[in-house]
Amino acid sequence: MTLKLGVIGIGAIGKDHIKRIHHKLSRASIVAVSDVNREQTDAFLSQECISAMYFENGIDLIQSKDVDAILVTSWGPTHEEFVLAAVEAGKFVFCEKPLAVTAEGCRQIVDAEIKAGKRLVQVGFMRRFDRGYRQLRNVISEQEMGLPLILNCAHRAPAAPGFFGDMAISDSLVHEFDVLRWLLQDDYVSAQVIQPRGTRLCDEGLQDPHVILLRTRDGILINIESFVNCQYGYDIQCNIICESGTVSLPEPSSLQRRHNARLSTEIIVDWQERFVDAFDVELQEWIDATLAGEMNGPSAWDGYVVAVTADVCLKAKHSGAIEAIDIPEKPTFYQ
Amino acid sequence: MTLKLGVIGIGAIGKDHIKRIHHKLSRASIVAVSDVNREQTDAFLSQECISAMYFENGIDLIQSKDVDAILVTSWGPTHEEFVLAAVEAGKFVFCEKPLAVTAEGCRQIVDAEIKAGKRLVQVGFMRRFDRGYRQLRNVISEQEMGLPLILNCAHRAPAAPGFFGDMAISDSLVHEFDVLRWLLQDDYVSAQVIQPRGTRLCDEGLQDPHVILLRTRDGILINIESFVNCQYGYDIQCNIICESGTVSLPEPSSLQRRHNARLSTEIIVDWQERFVDAFDVELQEWIDATLAGEMNGPSAWDGYVVAVTADVCLKAKHSGAIEAIDIPEKPTFYQ
Amino acid sequence: MTLKLGVIGIGAIGKDHIKRIHHKLSRASIVAVSDVNREQTDAFLSQECISAMYFENGIDLIQSKDVDAILVTSWGPTHEEFVLAAVEAGKFVFCEKPLAVTAEGCRQIVDAEIKAGKRLVQVGFMRRFDRGYRQLRNVISEQEMGLPLILNCAHRAPAAPGFFGDMAISDSLVHEFDVLRWLLQDDYVSAQVIQPRGTRLCDEGLQDPHVILLRTRDGILINIESFVNCQYGYDIQCNIICESGTVSLPEPSSLQRRHNARLSTEIIVDWQERFVDAFDVELQEWIDATLAGEMNGPSAWDGYVVAVTADVCLKAKHSGAIEAIDIPEKPTFYQ
Amino acid sequence: MTLKLGVIGIGAIGKDHIKRIHHKLSRASIVAVSDVNREQTDAFLSQECISAMYFENGIDLIQSKDVDAILVTSWGPTHEEFVLAAVEAGKFVFCEKPLAVTAEGCRQIVDAEIKAGKRLVQVGFMRRFDRGYRQLRNVISEQEMGLPLILNCAHRAPAAPGFFGDMAISDSLVHEFDVLRWLLQDDYVSAQVIQPRGTRLCDEGLQDPHVILLRTRDGILINIESFVNCQYGYDIQCNIICESGTVSLPEPSSLQRRHNARLSTEIIVDWQERFVDAFDVELQEWIDATLAGEMNGPSAWDGYVVAVTADVCLKAKHSGAIEAIDIPEKPTFYQ
Repeated sequence: MTLKLGVIGIGAIGKDHIKRIHHKLSRASIVAVSDVNREQTDAFLSQECISAMYFENGIDLIQSKDVDAILVTSWGPTHEEFVLAAVEAGKFVFCEKPLAVTAEGCRQIVDAEIKAGKRLVQVGFMRRFDRGYRQLRNVISEQEMGLPLILNCAHRAPAAPGFFGDMAISDSLVHEFDVLRWLLQDDYVSAQVIQPRGTRLCDEGLQDPHVILLRTRDGILINIESFVNCQYGYDIQCNIICESGTVSLPEPSSLQRRHNARLSTEIIVDWQERFVDAFDVELQEWIDATLAGEMNGPSAWDGYVVAVTADVCLKAKHSGAIEAIDIPEKPTFYQ
Repeated sequence: MTLKLGVIGIGAIGKDHIKRIHHKLSRASIVAVSDVNREQTDAFLSQECISAMYFENGIDLIQSKDVDAILVTSWGPTHEEFVLAAVEAGKFVFCEKPLAVTAEGCRQIVDAEIKAGKRLVQVGFMRRFDRGYRQLRNVISEQEMGLPLILNCAHRAPAAPGFFGDMAISDSLVHEFDVLRWLLQDDYVSAQVIQPRGTRLCDEGLQDPHVILLRTRDGILINIESFVNCQYGYDIQCNIICESGTVSLPEPSSLQRRHNARLSTEIIVDWQERFVDAFDVELQEWIDATLAGEMNGPSAWDGYVVAVTADVCLKAKHSGAIEAIDIPEKPTFYQ
Repeated sequence: MTLKLGVIGIGAIGKDHIKRIHHKLSRASIVAVSDVNREQTDAFLSQECISAMYFENGIDLIQSKDVDAILVTSWGPTHEEFVLAAVEAGKFVFCEKPLAVTAEGCRQIVDAEIKAGKRLVQVGFMRRFDRGYRQLRNVISEQEMGLPLILNCAHRAPAAPGFFGDMAISDSLVHEFDVLRWLLQDDYVSAQVIQPRGTRLCDEGLQDPHVILLRTRDGILINIESFVNCQYGYDIQCNIICESGTVSLPEPSSLQRRHNARLSTEIIVDWQERFVDAFDVELQEWIDATLAGEMNGPSAWDGYVVAVTADVCLKAKHSGAIEAIDIPEKPTFYQ
Repeated sequence: MTLKLGVIGIGAIGKDHIKRIHHKLSRASIVAVSDVNREQTDAFLSQECISAMYFENGIDLIQSKDVDAILVTSWGPTHEEFVLAAVEAGKFVFCEKPLAVTAEGCRQIVDAEIKAGKRLVQVGFMRRFDRGYRQLRNVISEQEMGLPLILNCAHRAPAAPGFFGDMAISDSLVHEFDVLRWLLQDDYVSAQVIQPRGTRLCDEGLQDPHVILLRTRDGILINIESFVNCQYGYDIQCNIICESGTVSLPEPSSLQRRHNARLSTEIIVDWQERFVDAFDVELQEWIDATLAGEMNGPSAWDGYVVAVTADVCLKAKHSGAIEAIDIPEKPTFYQ
């Protein structure tokens, strides 16, 4: 059985997912695409030897009876409309982050989905599918080293040319916000944002790095460093201090060299390399879950909670104070 | 376009490959199988939701017009016959090692393939498809650290319950024999086998470990330790000493722990975990190459050279002397 | 030339220093001791084959004309008196921490020393003499990776049986307070103390771990985790995030093992092992500086600043707020 | 009690030892020196503020009643004469390697010492005093991982400008020859020397690297790589494969950096740095043993065995064959 997929938005990530599904994954085929730029879309499909229907309008693609399920990889502000349309059409939909550009928009999707009576939406938080994070989660859920007390995390990128304002928080930290609460099976209750001495090696006017402190219901302290102009590489760290030991994400596998008076391994520079395997697992599991009719990845509710968290962090950044994060009771629908 | 595959021999490795092709890989489907035990085969296929024709006889499967290409995963001594039949039928065939149980048998396949006028055979030496070995090969071919002078390799397994006699050399070291000459783009000229003090932690009467010393045409010294009852884990090492530095295979990715007065990472124990990604890449590349009509993986010639090398190592083990490895000139057909 | 030393307080640390000076170091000899317990002191000296005058009273020892310089290793509350007496006597004095049990007491020593017109006092902050911290300081002072922005430090001990109340801050973090401002050549301006979920593996009623956040004049953010019941080992970490890279304290040198499915190095359990070399360097440099008549180690001023910092941290622990650290302008005498 | 030392030969290593004894060690003082170059010797002593008698003739120094014990750090070919004279004078003597330039010369010293009836001679094999080698020896002697089966060692230096002919074996590998038999408490029975493809990055005409294979009485296989122009650093490795695990010498302690897409630690370049602590321990223990009247470091017998081993390795290098090492029964005197 093969899942017939329609993809809305054929930009960088849309192309990546199409290539992944076509060349590396099983049990799905791309049958329909929609994008504002038909010419480029056609060129891409023909280059990849994929024949798929073209829809000028994403809504039409969603409603097409030839399409079983939808991938939304279009421009962020359009996500909400497409996801709502998919839910209304009763079709499974995988939406790249953000689920919607506002927490309110996410909430609407949650409400629509609850009304539809069936989990249909998955959000593209791929870190949950990374082998390292999954191993970390096992260590915690089996209490191999007792309870977790403190998490020290870092999200570092060599440079962020287009970044301005609060994008470090609203755009890249959302992955941490999702994966850490999934890791801990806990929720956030407060946030504080500290702006240390800033690096000079970034665009003028940008504050970089930030340190975000989150507390959870269980009292766990999470320290996240966001440093998007760290120069040296793309480096995602997560170190958990438990009652009887600590455990950290694996360093990405690398040759070991002895050269020029250094014993060294390589640090990834290109972020796309870091989670390439996680993307594969994420989409294959989504395809398989969709074929089985049961969503189990990051839900619309998760997308909503992350949006609320990001909003409070922005507030905390500007106030300098410890701000409360009020997340409503999780609907039984999502339990 | 989908490659229609027939699989001969539905044992452990046959099942693995079928599951891999069905669940994880693209552009191939299992259309036919052959095995001596029909009942178990049917049970396996039904469990995996695969519908495929059953052939009592491997030769019939090979000749079936519904089968585009063949996977030989049957008992070693049957490989030669099936591969020869596939070559005769003009079909692409992927054969797990050994290509044949004697060097002479391998040579016959080489001759048959040359006579057929087209490369049709690939041997299942999966290490060439391992990310780490590929990175090592780049370092060498780009002479990042000058020329390679010495290789120190280890092939260690926690235990080898069924091993007896010379199996450590004839059965497991063949992977090293293949991947190292591919890594160096060089050929062996002599072998010496040393039997150090043996471990007491193995079946009685078994000599373990062995050290195999190979020299190449370029004078490179290769030191391979084979220790199949090392207790602590499945550990494949390859460290290359070059003119201006050294480079080693990556340690498999692992969480890092601080616990019980140790800073540690995990060592794999189960050999199947170690090369699981390499198997995926190997078969996907073979499928794609087969669809494109061009074999480029380990050839029948490579299988033959490995068989000759293993034979000389066995001789050297028993003589204690440095024995010459005489490999005939590589036929232009394989260049 | 040999420095004639008098030691006040022959407890654990006093004995250690005497053995160190007698057996391992150059250019000093123990000529006088003072301790409340004469019997134990005599037994210790005779066991170490050391002949030294015994003084019932520390002040008498200080004033003895046979004593060139003094080591104060007595009970904390007595330090202030002995140091002041040494300053008054115009003699060099090395005082184990604390310099005095209150900031006010430290300040009196500072004032007395300034009045004496000559630096005579060194405080036993031995981390400045640790090879790793010295290497870190070079990296920072040479701006090898640009300016430092964030420091992540940890002070972990396996257990702290006698600890109660605020001892984690007042007793053990003082070493971090000293070494970090020396490392950065900067001063603290504020402190915040966070109490994460506490471990259950400690004495009842004790909060453990703590996280202390310090800001410096230059805006550097320092994050210090204090976890004195971490179970797994004695582990001192210091990781500095600079503009173009990060640098960390060395892991203590250890054999590397592959055993029981783990690749591991050892973590020290006994804190005394960790800084044993630093203690040697500290005292030898102090002996040499004393012979040369020039103090250059941690000064009374440093002892005072650390005491002020610790006081503010205690206040911050109890208030939960970000508290200002007001350190007076450094007297020119200490520049 | 202070040991009065006379030093013969004030070159690089002589100066090092004098500075070490004067500035860092306990219970010994330099009272006499002898060197062919008086002017340089005087300049050195005055620079180090050491006053010592000058002897034009080493033999006179040895016989001086003001000298308790002797350090021989002169040119290799003179060692034998000075050591014999010290033995004859009944004085303890520490002799830098080589004990004598021929095995025969070493044997004469052994015979003289036996005749004198007391162990007086220690040879400067400092690796036995290195913390890492000592830890390795504990692992082996406690059979923490069962019996040792294979040792893989490397002796690498960045460059060896003055090296020619067989110096890599006769001059630098002697340290491995000594420390490995001490580590294993075993003796060598055969040697084989392999000359792999040579590096181009060395003086013309020099073969580099070499691989030396030694077998012990217990059947242990020792593989020593000697690569004295490896470019990247001074790197001493010793990895022991035991029945249930492996254990390796520590990497020298180093800061850890994340910089320029590399996670790295430093490799020492200057050989003198590598064993600086071992030299300190070696001499302090020798001083203490001498004061106690009991030699327990590397003996004249050890020096003799190393010389025999080096001779057989040279023979094996030129013959290409496996050559027997015939070491006479150890005299009871040395047991």
